[in-house]
Amino acid sequence: MVVEKVIAKWNCSGRVVEGPTNPMVTPLLTDLYQFTMAYAYWKANKHQERAVFDLYFRKNPFGGEYTVFAGLEECIRLIANFKFTEDEISFIREILPGSCEDGFFDYLRGLDCSEVEVYAIAEGSVVFPKVPLLRIEGPIAVAQLLETPLVNLVNFASLVATNAARHRFVAGKSKQLLEFGLRRAQGPDGGISASKVLLPWGVNGSDPAFRRDLKLIQGASSKLRKLSRFTRSLYLIVPSGKGTKTETRTFFKAEKNISVASNVAAGKLFGIPLRGTHSHAFVSSYMSPDEIIDKSLQSADGSSSCEDFVSLVQTWINKFQLSNSLRGIFGETNQSELAAFTSYALAFPRSFLALVDTYDVMRSGIPNFCAVALALNDLGYKAVGIRLDSGDLAYLSCEARKFFSAVEKEFGVPGFGKTGITASNDLNEETLDALNKQGHEVDSYGIGTYLVTCYAQAALGCVFKLVEINNQPRIKLSEDVSKVSIPCKKRSYRLYGREGYPLVDIMTGGNEPSPKVGERILCRHPFNESKRAYVVPQQVEELLKCYWPGSSDEPREDLPPLKDIRDRCIKQLERMRPDHMRRLNPTPYKVSVSAKLYDFIHFLWLNEAPVGELQ
Amino acid sequence: MVVEKVIAKWNCSGRVVEGPTNPMVTPLLTDLYQFTMAYAYWKANKHQERAVFDLYFRKNPFGGEYTVFAGLEECIRLIANFKFTEDEISFIREILPGSCEDGFFDYLRGLDCSEVEVYAIAEGSVVFPKVPLLRIEGPIAVAQLLETPLVNLVNFASLVATNAARHRFVAGKSKQLLEFGLRRAQGPDGGISASKVLLPWGVNGSDPAFRRDLKLIQGASSKLRKLSRFTRSLYLIVPSGKGTKTETRTFFKAEKNISVASNVAAGKLFGIPLRGTHSHAFVSSYMSPDEIIDKSLQSADGSSSCEDFVSLVQTWINKFQLSNSLRGIFGETNQSELAAFTSYALAFPRSFLALVDTYDVMRSGIPNFCAVALALNDLGYKAVGIRLDSGDLAYLSCEARKFFSAVEKEFGVPGFGKTGITASNDLNEETLDALNKQGHEVDSYGIGTYLVTCYAQAALGCVFKLVEINNQPRIKLSEDVSKVSIPCKKRSYRLYGREGYPLVDIMTGGNEPSPKVGERILCRHPFNESKRAYVVPQQVEELLKCYWPGSSDEPREDLPPLKDIRDRCIKQLERMRPDHMRRLNPTPYKVSVSAKLYDFIHFLWLNEAPVGELQ
Repeated sequence: MVVEKVIAKWNCSGRVVEGPTNPMVTPLLTDLYQFTMAYAYWKANKHQERAVFDLYFRKNPFGGEYTVFAGLEECIRLIANFKFTEDEISFIREILPGSCEDGFFDYLRGLDCSEVEVYAIAEGSVVFPKVPLLRIEGPIAVAQLLETPLVNLVNFASLVATNAARHRFVAGKSKQLLEFGLRRAQGPDGGISASKVLLPWGVNGSDPAFRRDLKLIQGASSKLRKLSRFTRSLYLIVPSGKGTKTETRTFFKAEKNISVASNVAAGKLFGIPLRGTHSHAFVSSYMSPDEIIDKSLQSADGSSSCEDFVSLVQTWINKFQLSNSLRGIFGETNQSELAAFTSYALAFPRSFLALVDTYDVMRSGIPNFCAVALALNDLGYKAVGIRLDSGDLAYLSCEARKFFSAVEKEFGVPGFGKTGITASNDLNEETLDALNKQGHEVDSYGIGTYLVTCYAQAALGCVFKLVEINNQPRIKLSEDVSKVSIPCKKRSYRLYGREGYPLVDIMTGGNEPSPKVGERILCRHPFNESKRAYVVPQQVEELLKCYWPGSSDEPREDLPPLKDIRDRCIKQLERMRPDHMRRLNPTPYKVSVSAKLYDFIHFLWLNEAPVGELQ
Repeated sequence: MVVEKVIAKWNCSGRVVEGPTNPMVTPLLTDLYQFTMAYAYWKANKHQERAVFDLYFRKNPFGGEYTVFAGLEECIRLIANFKFTEDEISFIREILPGSCEDGFFDYLRGLDCSEVEVYAIAEGSVVFPKVPLLRIEGPIAVAQLLETPLVNLVNFASLVATNAARHRFVAGKSKQLLEFGLRRAQGPDGGISASKVLLPWGVNGSDPAFRRDLKLIQGASSKLRKLSRFTRSLYLIVPSGKGTKTETRTFFKAEKNISVASNVAAGKLFGIPLRGTHSHAFVSSYMSPDEIIDKSLQSADGSSSCEDFVSLVQTWINKFQLSNSLRGIFGETNQSELAAFTSYALAFPRSFLALVDTYDVMRSGIPNFCAVALALNDLGYKAVGIRLDSGDLAYLSCEARKFFSAVEKEFGVPGFGKTGITASNDLNEETLDALNKQGHEVDSYGIGTYLVTCYAQAALGCVFKLVEINNQPRIKLSEDVSKVSIPCKKRSYRLYGREGYPLVDIMTGGNEPSPKVGERILCRHPFNESKRAYVVPQQVEELLKCYWPGSSDEPREDLPPLKDIRDRCIKQLERMRPDHMRRLNPTPYKVSVSAKLYDFIHFLWLNEAPVGELQ
């Protein structure tokens, strides 16, 4: 099998390309017309003609002026394993006319991607309209079969990655972002892929450096553990190794802008750190603290044991009611809620985070949380914080902060004023922006529906266009100029200016010399005659690299680990000129073609378009 | 294993419940907090307490006043096969604190849904806010673990089904709808599940009656085949059985409102009829008719053979240019396009449908199509039609129709004026509505992005709320009244009025007597005191049926085949009072509670909510 040969070649460089993450991604995950076309090509003996397709999008999503490219790895996984099973071939035979000749099915039987070459921009790059994200070269019938799955895999991944970048941009670097969207995602893998491509959110669990630090903490001395207790905002649940009961759950001292998700399946697949505590149902499943039977809790250092943690909590509630600064804020707190918080703390004394809005945030949730947190504090534990899931998040977070500070002052609990506040409840770019404008005390945001369904714009319009066949450039015309394709097997470059910002992307014909640092080059708008600019690049970056060499001897790029993709993404986002990135009226980034390519496009256009006749 | 016992029970009634369609749907497809809660319940020895959860949504999507319920079968498939593997248990151990006790993992090892009962509204039903779609009863820890996957499975399926209903409503019953959305879907199974739940679109390929008709046509005499050739708009590619070369592709004589998709994987999984021909790339991959080497084509009845079909096509182009009625409409047609159409017709003479907008619809695409179609007609074949994928679809479809009629008249080809016109290109409810208002000649619509991504509203906000534990009703309060949950294990009924329309859905406490036909009953808005109405139902339908009896002896509903779901869906949509269904300012359908339940809700509410204190 040729595929085996090619995969063997990849193995030589130390990498096996596994199959797609979602087992539903098979060569049948395509439109019927790819098979009818494949048959027509085969019947006309045209199926082996060498074609070049560009995969690109026409417009940045969410009213912005940039896009984050994601999904490449899944594309290469599909391509590396593209092979029809006998069962699949039987089904194709079933859905095609009975008149289709047997030879076609024999052809499908031998078909793979060993003659296909794939060039792509690095995953995690900031990308722009019209510039090919992928260039697929190969026998036209095969390339055509790849169209639907490749577009599917790139579209949603890039859309969510871009959405994630935009949410990070508004939230700011200092906030922790949590992805909570699985339940509202468009199907199971809508949720799973969304969790994977939160590239712009920061450190990812599969990051080796991150893993190393974790190991360090896992094996840490009690001193390090103590130190880590003072790093409030970022913590991770880590295992101690099977069977042992040593408590190794700990806070993680690192940059805050980490990507964290709630989706356990995604955590398992991609090593994404997971987070989650309890829901409203948990709170309302308790009736009163009397329900709690096992009330004992060992102190954090194991030196002593509290036999009645429930009473200890109640002592704190009583203290609040007698306190000068807290008196009057609340009367009776909800007993069902108090019971649930107490019970949760008994189960997870080192990671107590409470959802405080089941009954009433200020009159019940916050005092109940504080009573449990201070009882934990008596035993040497530090509570993580609260989550607000409804109401006026700006107001409530400020009020909660005031309460925490009053508790710190009144009862002399250092650091209690800085107890973590997480906010959730249908957050999106607009609500984050509004929170910023109002002022708030939120440390972490849980973002769900709006992030994973890309609610503001549910699709990215990636297309897959034929640009060359048998070395003949092809163009797709349209009355809508933005839909005219840019012909030719092209090369693309990003040109950087004096201040280090990317200035313009330029596409050239495949055989043109590449732009040179310090050499002036004319960049033309592909369709607007009057828009052109000279650029003297300070740095030139070729965008398309070979990720699947097929049977060519093209040197190929490794599929990078998620860590590198994330690093690239964050670095590129940071390198952009700020006016391209702002939410309101961002400046479009320039995408251009060389003077030579410009002339050729317009020659071809005139050649193909019929001359009208007014009557 | 208890699960095996339960499955065996299902087997007795002749049905095995297979696993979820998407292999990524496992017990790990859930939020981390379901596991932390499960642990906390287990630690408090509360995990076996019997809880009742309602799964419902709060607001109809797309600005409408109805929703179509879908996704039930996938929920039951998950529940019937809910069992942790050792690998999954190891992963859960890894992500939970090391302090979690071993007994919990033993508990997970034995956990299944044998003690869970699932009551649901029938899949395909028209449903309304607040009324439970599913009621899950069972040990609280297990029910809680089901929350995320059930909500995920119902959310998107119901959203797409509703979107499909809305598109069918605007398009009208007489039009054929084609789902083309795979490439833009939110991930691979976003596309696959979307194709599955086009319930309101009509006949589905898995319909036994449909399959029977297909068999009939497959084995049909030439007479039947000839007859079927005259049914223009609906055709299906059917197999002749392996190895034989008999042409069995044929037109399908049936109602037009069939659901058809392009997604081959969905076709294989759910028996959905598939459709598709060729893309713009196919057209531009040809340079000129000179490329075509094998030019021969047998006549439809096999009696003769045309040695040079390319020349036959050219003869027709020449005739057009000499014609009185067509002269002047076009000059030179595009030769690349003509070659592609000719080549496609040689491969699929019985199903020639051409995409006519690659260069210029009226000056090239339509005349090229007609030339090939008439050449086919000379050999006894009937072309299927054209597809328009850009430009002014209303105008172009009318112009195309005029051209077809002129051809019919001028060259005496009966029926040619009725050649099929399919339109695609970012169609949605608004564009379909605009087309209707302008007047058009489109027979079929290909709908993609807007349908499968539910672009107009990318998520349905299904929630999963605890309503009872240990026979104690529970309520979730909120400052936003629309978010207050309706407590108690309830029963729900749909009450029908004199004219046969559903009048109101009413929820009652579990032990209340059910509403009776002809007996007056007071229906109260659950939260608005002043909104209430007496109803004398002419028909009473209990909404929740048992689909998974767990270890109870509740009689259970079979999971119906897709055909029945579709039938129910169409019947229910048709039975709704038209003012609930209209696009502009639809009347809200009434959702109510019994007087007794109303009183109880408000008693509980006052009981749980703290009394404020103004300062």
